[in-house]
Amino acid sequence: MAYVKWSFETLNAFCKDVFRKFGFSGDEADTITDVLLTADLYGIESHGMQRMVRYHKGLEKGTIHGDAKPEIVFETPISAVIDGHSGMGQLVGVFAMQKAIEKAKATGVGIVTVRESNHYGIAGYYAKMACDEGLLGFSCTNSEAIMVPTFGRKAMLGSNPIAVAMPADPYPFFFDSSTTVVTRGKLEMYNKMGKPLPEGWALDENGQPSQDAPRVLANIVGKNGGGIVPLGGATETLGSHKGYGYGMLAEIFSSILSQGVTSAECCTFDDKTGICHGFAAINPAAFGDPDAIRAHFNEYLQELRDSPKAEGAARIYTHGEKEVEAEQDRRENGIQVNDGTMVELADLCQYLGLDFSSYFPGYELPAEFAGFTGNY
Amino acid sequence: MAYVKWSFETLNAFCKDVFRKFGFSGDEADTITDVLLTADLYGIESHGMQRMVRYHKGLEKGTIHGDAKPEIVFETPISAVIDGHSGMGQLVGVFAMQKAIEKAKATGVGIVTVRESNHYGIAGYYAKMACDEGLLGFSCTNSEAIMVPTFGRKAMLGSNPIAVAMPADPYPFFFDSSTTVVTRGKLEMYNKMGKPLPEGWALDENGQPSQDAPRVLANIVGKNGGGIVPLGGATETLGSHKGYGYGMLAEIFSSILSQGVTSAECCTFDDKTGICHGFAAINPAAFGDPDAIRAHFNEYLQELRDSPKAEGAARIYTHGEKEVEAEQDRRENGIQVNDGTMVELADLCQYLGLDFSSYFPGYELPAEFAGFTGNY
Repeated sequence: MAYVKWSFETLNAFCKDVFRKFGFSGDEADTITDVLLTADLYGIESHGMQRMVRYHKGLEKGTIHGDAKPEIVFETPISAVIDGHSGMGQLVGVFAMQKAIEKAKATGVGIVTVRESNHYGIAGYYAKMACDEGLLGFSCTNSEAIMVPTFGRKAMLGSNPIAVAMPADPYPFFFDSSTTVVTRGKLEMYNKMGKPLPEGWALDENGQPSQDAPRVLANIVGKNGGGIVPLGGATETLGSHKGYGYGMLAEIFSSILSQGVTSAECCTFDDKTGICHGFAAINPAAFGDPDAIRAHFNEYLQELRDSPKAEGAARIYTHGEKEVEAEQDRRENGIQVNDGTMVELADLCQYLGLDFSSYFPGYELPAEFAGFTGNY
Repeated sequence: MAYVKWSFETLNAFCKDVFRKFGFSGDEADTITDVLLTADLYGIESHGMQRMVRYHKGLEKGTIHGDAKPEIVFETPISAVIDGHSGMGQLVGVFAMQKAIEKAKATGVGIVTVRESNHYGIAGYYAKMACDEGLLGFSCTNSEAIMVPTFGRKAMLGSNPIAVAMPADPYPFFFDSSTTVVTRGKLEMYNKMGKPLPEGWALDENGQPSQDAPRVLANIVGKNGGGIVPLGGATETLGSHKGYGYGMLAEIFSSILSQGVTSAECCTFDDKTGICHGFAAINPAAFGDPDAIRAHFNEYLQELRDSPKAEGAARIYTHGEKEVEAEQDRRENGIQVNDGTMVELADLCQYLGLDFSSYFPGYELPAEFAGFTGNY
């Protein structure tokens, strides 16, 4: 597959126009775009604007209600429950995290659980919102079932990412990861390359280890059983029950406390996905001088980076360094988009009545592209 | 190695007397005993009363200050920082979790971070304290460095367990696990059996995978490098960076927010260990009707248990089931203690002037036992 690089500014302008055309206000389109492009800048393309087609499908199918506004249905000074009314996940997510931040600034902590939302992009975006305000930020979400619990053969949990961000220098601690061993995107990558999956990633429909990417992916799509194993693998030897446990934590803060739809059922409805999220912000000032806490954290992070490397390893990372470096690279050198995605974006322009060539001048679509197909 | 079983009541009476003899008050001895024997009942013998020798050593050496009382050094309605003054970890831990519970009942949430404590037993005990009060409970701790960060060869984090407990029926959700792939106790078990370690557990002094239990353990003791890998292994393929990230979370809530000693340095001092803990309690009532939330959770847990099993697997567990069953078994059939431990307990009796045979009637010590050796 060939790739082309576009500047952040190009994709940003395009993305905002697309969401305005879908009927979102200027502010809403800006918010959605910021969530998506942050993923691209961080090098997490699987969750960026290149999955725009996912949101188009949701809006067309009716699982995403473009005009819905999130509503606070329960609230205390330290907590809130939000009904997303099946609105865009990014808008629901930002609204909810803003609530958590507001509460953390007033009381020291804010915990917000959300039901009836939609795919919200990267969990880390929301954790980082709190971090940007000097707070410790958390976010998690449930999602379409893909994690098979230890000893099972049916996916009952989502990839259920948990993200945590905490202020530090020269860059924040930023941890954002699925509680499955890998995400579905990784399986799709191996599938496209025609390579067998690494051992320890996936299970077939009988709950047996499988390295057969097409088979596992077909089973996931067809809900025939199997899926991805928890962080820690398929058996207790490497800690399968631990990854499964972290997946449960994400579920508790998203679907359980909000009394929403669990991963076992979400994304099985015609008029909604039912996806649930969890958010928390904690003010370090609730534990003393935030500057002193930050300095103490900085010192430990530096000790980790400076600690002796394994033979053959050049560097020990602290969480968030890769994202900072990816962002520098992508702001300087552009964001990579593959040709398949470019075709999807051209389709989207035709559908919305936008001029593809004005956003992506000089880009030649493959000869076979003959206007909007709707088949993506 | 041969084993003998003793009733819970026998070990309970013995353990309480031992701690009273060490100079703790009746209440303090009861608390310490309850933490330790809960581990034994849950089947986590490595953290139970069978490691009593560890506490004896700490009290003798002066890293545990038997007469220290924990002190609140910073407090808000939702948070507290506690200086443990190097007291017994169990007493510090129970004091801190009681504070978190009190705050959660008053405000909805209580987060307490602790510095200058000691080994506190199983993290799950404290999470369960909150759960027993109808709250969502969390606890984590740092510990002597044993986890090698991804791409490293020097242990910089502890086993850093994270525990979460949440009310549910017919038994609570109870998740308690190290953020390393396994704990040191598992390595010691393989060492005693003379078996090679499973692949994916440990690193040698050069940061290379090793299945050589004696070598890895000798390196850990000698601080020569190497150690145990994070949950997710040594490389990013199976998610090493994720386990390392969860280890960092435990560090943030224990040593960072409390401005205490990080795992990189703790247990390297003569007059303290510096071990830090984190605790939180969250009131489900801050998110709606606690009974409705509990019922919703029960339903999901049952769906998980009922979901299709992998070929060859008989059962899917939810977290905490194994502990409930272990407790039933041990209350009925007794708690297993090995002969090596019995010798240690006899030694301890001689040291403290307690009558070993009155606690363990009919037990014949190995012929080579010739009174207190102090060599354990």
